[in-house]
Order: sequence, then structure tokens, then C-alpha cells
Amino acid sequence: MRKPTLALVGATGAVGTVMRDIVSTRDDVYGEIRLVASARSAGKRLPVRGEELVVQELTPEVFDGVDIAMFDVPDEISKIWVPIAAERGAVVVDKSGAFRMEPDVPLVVPEVNPGAVRERPRGIISTPNCTTLSMMAAMGALHAEYGLTELVVASYQAVSGAGVAGTERLYAEIEAVAGDRSLGQVAGDVRKAIQNRLGDGESPFPAPLALNVVPWAGSLKEDGWASEELKLRNESRKILGIPGLKVSATCVRVPVVTTHSLAVHATFERPVGVEGVRAILDAAPTVVVMDDPENGVYPTPADVVGTDPTYVGRIRQAIDFPNTLDLFVCGDNLRKGAALNAAEIAELVAAEFTD
Amino acid sequence: MRKPTLALVGATGAVGTVMRDIVSTRDDVYGEIRLVASARSAGKRLPVRGEELVVQELTPEVFDGVDIAMFDVPDEISKIWVPIAAERGAVVVDKSGAFRMEPDVPLVVPEVNPGAVRERPRGIISTPNCTTLSMMAAMGALHAEYGLTELVVASYQAVSGAGVAGTERLYAEIEAVAGDRSLGQVAGDVRKAIQNRLGDGESPFPAPLALNVVPWAGSLKEDGWASEELKLRNESRKILGIPGLKVSATCVRVPVVTTHSLAVHATFERPVGVEGVRAILDAAPTVVVMDDPENGVYPTPADVVGTDPTYVGRIRQAIDFPNTLDLFVCGDNLRKGAALNAAEIAELVAAEFTD
Repeated sequence: MRKPTLALVGATGAVGTVMRDIVSTRDDVYGEIRLVASARSAGKRLPVRGEELVVQELTPEVFDGVDIAMFDVPDEISKIWVPIAAERGAVVVDKSGAFRMEPDVPLVVPEVNPGAVRERPRGIISTPNCTTLSMMAAMGALHAEYGLTELVVASYQAVSGAGVAGTERLYAEIEAVAGDRSLGQVAGDVRKAIQNRLGDGESPFPAPLALNVVPWAGSLKEDGWASEELKLRNESRKILGIPGLKVSATCVRVPVVTTHSLAVHATFERPVGVEGVRAILDAAPTVVVMDDPENGVYPTPADVVGTDPTYVGRIRQAIDFPNTLDLFVCGDNLRKGAALNAAEIAELVAAEFTD
Repeated sequence: MRKPTLALVGATGAVGTVMRDIVSTRDDVYGEIRLVASARSAGKRLPVRGEELVVQELTPEVFDGVDIAMFDVPDEISKIWVPIAAERGAVVVDKSGAFRMEPDVPLVVPEVNPGAVRERPRGIISTPNCTTLSMMAAMGALHAEYGLTELVVASYQAVSGAGVAGTERLYAEIEAVAGDRSLGQVAGDVRKAIQNRLGDGESPFPAPLALNVVPWAGSLKEDGWASEELKLRNESRKILGIPGLKVSATCVRVPVVTTHSLAVHATFERPVGVEGVRAILDAAPTVVVMDDPENGVYPTPADVVGTDPTYVGRIRQAIDFPNTLDLFVCGDNLRKGAALNAAEIAELVAAEFTD
């Protein structure tokens, strides 16, 4: 019985920073921890579990002796390096989209399908897209009781979903528009104010986010769909084990730093009642119900960011659809939406070492 | 053949300001124009059609000789004063929610049901809620072709929907959070930063709007529904003339000054194809299609605010729902969503004077 060695790959990014925080504050299940990043960041010293560690360069050899590797890097880097880590004997928990839909790679949300972690013929386990994850704990609990058949989702996605660059861009845009109380009333004036202040600096977003919302997230796929919208459909089907689940999503970026919100219209096989739904969600260990509109209680990103649960509010039985619920769900996209879910999967794997 | 006399009641508010602008820039169909407001604003001088007019106090006598009165005042003021204006002989176009669902008051969107303006036994015509209006021109055109049966809507509502106080509050909150690049990452820190800067000043919103979204608009109605969500349902049914239309809406306030956006999941009696939908929307005179995601073209509030059309983008045939479209719609909530629609109704009435 020994504690497994963990490698955090992508330790310097937005999610990597939260990953370091999470492994530092949860039960200490690991022996050695290695921080790994690109050559550019190698040599940096970063804190984990109260000690400073030197970031190591991503090489095949860095995985020698590693039992579990958590990857948070772009798809194209995961595609190359995840199989290398797996070949060297690490069980890889991969945050990228590179392997999620592969039939021989499980896609895991520990509250929903924990058993799937053991079905990993390639030694790779994927963790879902942050938007899908924001609602999965809640939808999994409701599906188990009522049998989910349809999901119509509109998202309110935070800028940190686009990484540190997204967060920095929003802060800079907010500074560019603050103080001018005439902005946002004439077409293009917000765009001009940002350009005047920030110049032609690259934004990770296709339009201004300060005083704006942008109906786009990800890359263009067939028939006008954004990749984020198709991920939400395909990943929900795989995690919940409902190949015929009907899903439509519209993904919209909003000027929020961290925490994705979703307006969910969910239809079930069986009739749903608000009281039963509350009881199920109250009993779900990682779900918090915030739903008392009479007293102004519903989840908002500013009130829940930085915490672990999935928050559910505005629980309503749809008036014209007997088996349908309307909900508003918030989840921190860097924690449950990314680092926390990966950490929870890694802990399931770590438990195998002490079984 | 004479030009009718117009009274603008609520001339000093957010919508009233746009109303003065609209009657000043559209075809000049009116003779005398009277500006009317509460005693507090009476005596102010405000520009209309290039001349300064003195605001008159709201009294029964102010309506003597008035042919058409456009009201933009709170429900409880409309409830009292609209019937008084109508008794004095004015045809009233009322922006409030007070009369919209009365069976003997038509609820009119000129692109959709212009004939209804003549069916006004009480001399009162209502104009819809701004959220409903944001999508009505587009949905009316699609309904005429395909037969609408279901609407699932999530809104991204601008703060000016809550009047001048809403707009001022957002500007002040943006100023309060600008410059601190750590905010929005810990629960409650945005709330604290705003409180530190603005004190316990009243907000028209139940939670911070800077760096946040708030899933609430209006007042609490039965079974956890917000009034704005029920308006969207009931008004859509009345305007489109579909008493059995199934509607579910979740209304969310976002940090945008002006222009409401809606993610719409619309189901029809007949199969819909993206090409046909584009053709119908292109042919609708007040609808503009902005839909070329490959080149980053989709409507956003910052790019369309201050203009008259209803903008439609992200037009997709829902993958798992054969007769369903997913769309993203933007409309200026102070123009088409309020003052412009009222002005267009008033012009239909004004035309009767010259028929």
C-alpha cells in the first residue's frame, strides 16, 4: 500500500492553477507530485501542498514512475502526449476534447458514472467539457429518478473558459469602458472604446464582452453549430448513457470571469413535480439547491464562484409541458467544470492503489 | 384631413427619451405634440422635432383635444390614467402591462397583427413587453409560413429594461469593479467591491450585475415563475393568435445597457429548413439576418443597439428535433422593444385621420 505519484501537466494555466489548489486542500492521497508544463514555463517555482515545486518540461521521461497524470492542455498537445504518458504506465485523466468521444475511453463524472473509470483499456480517462459538467451532477440525479429524454439548454459562459487570456481580456475591456456613462447605447461604440484603449490587441473572443454578450463558443462545425454546442449534446449522451437523448444547445459567452450558468429545459419519461425534484437534488451530495425567489434566493456566478457544488435554482414545472422542468444551474467552470472533476476521477484511480 | 394631436405621457423616462427621438426622426404625422409627465417633471423643457417643449403635468384636462396618447408609465399609473385619457377622446397606446391581457384591448405588433388596432372598443391599444417584442417580428414571419407550436426561450436582458435607474446602476457597478483584476473569482467579492464603493444604495436588481448574470426579471408569480416569463408566454399567444402555443421561458438579466437577446428553440407544425427560414426572414421588412459564423457574423447587443430592426443569427435546424429551429435574436429593448413599436401603432391610428 503506497501513495501514487501524480503528474500535473499544464500546471501553469487557468485550470492548472486551480488544480494545484485542489490537490493542496483535499485529502492528501498522493506521494510525489510533479508539475509539468511547456519548455517556456519549465524552471518556474509554483506552490503545491505548501511547498514550492520546480516546473518540469514536458518530455516522455517526465512520466517515468508516474502513476496518475492529469492533463490540462490544448487538444493537439493532448493528442500527442496523452498516449506517451499512458505508454509509460501512467493512468491519464485528460481534460481536453481529444479523446472524450473515443469508444474505448471512458468519459466520467464521478457522481454519475464512477464505475466507468475501471473500463480504460488504453489507460486514458476523459473528463467532460466545462459547460456539460456545469449541469451534469444535477441532471444525473434527476435522470436516475425520472428518465431524461430531452434537453434544451442556453448557456451563460464565463470568459475563463477561454483560459487566462480570456480573463485578462475581460478585465482590460471592463477598464476600457468604465467611466463613460454614454456607452452601450449606439451600435459599435463599445467596440470603439475598447479599440481606442486596447488597440488592435488580440482577443480570444470574436466580439467585445464588456457590456455585451456573444452567441459563440468554440469552433465552427457542420450546419452552423459551434463545437461547444455539439460537445454538450454528445458528451451528455455518453456520460448519462442515453444514446438517443435529444439535445439542442445555444452557447453564449457573457462578461462573467468564472462560473458557467445554464438555463435548462429538461424533459423526462415520467411526470415531474417540483417538490420531488427538490428532494432529489437536496439528497445529491454535490448539488446545492438555492431556490427561494420570494427572498431573492437563486444562484448567480458572483455568489457561488470559487466553490465546488453545482447550484440549482429557479426550479419550475413547465406550464405547457407536463414532464418538463425549467431550471437555472451554476457551476464554477474551473473547479467542478474542470480541475475538481479531474481531481475526483484521479482520486477514484488513486483508491485502487490502496484497495 | 388634419394631422392628429399627440400626447407623450412619461416623456422623461428611458423609453420616453427614445419616444421623443423617434417622433422627431420618423415621418411627421402629427400636428401638435404635448409632453406629459408627473408633477415632479412638469415645467422641464425637452426637445421634440427640433423645438423645446415645456413638460405638462398629468391631469385629465391635458388630454382635451388629444387624438392619440402614448403612455410609458408604471402599471399602476396606467391603470388610473389610461381610461381617463380614453374617456377624454384620445386613442391610447399603452406600454404598460396593465391592459395587455384584457380581452377587449388589442395587443399589437404592426408586422404581425396590424388589423387588430381597429378592434379597440375601449379606445385602448396595448404594446407588448420588451422581451416578447424582441423576437415577435421574426417569430411572426416564421409562424405565418410554418405554424408555430412550441417556444423554449432563454433571455439575456439589458439593464435599461428596468429604466434609467437600471442603466445608472450598471454604469456605477462597472466603475466599482474596474481596475481590480482579482474580482469574480471568490464568492461574494464582486458584491463586496460594489458595496464598498456604492454603499447601501438601492439597486433595481436583486444581485450585482457587473461581472454577473441574475436569473430574475419582474415580480414573483405562482409556482416560482417570474412575471416576465409569464408575459412572454401569454403575450406571444395573444399576438400570434395561437391560444394553445406551448411556451417555457427563463429570463436572465445580463450586464448589457440596452438590447435584449434571446436564445430561441422554436418548434413548428411543418418541417423547417435553414435555407427556407433565411429566405422568409430576409423578406421580412423589419428583420435583418446576421448569420455567417465562419466570418464571425452573428448579432450582439453592442453591434446592433440604437437601431430599429430585429436581428437574427445562429440559425440552426435542431439536430434531434425535426420541426425545430434554434436561433439567437437581438432587439433594442427601448426602440422596437418599446418606443418604436408604440410609435408604429400610433402611426397606424394616425393614418385613420387621413384615410
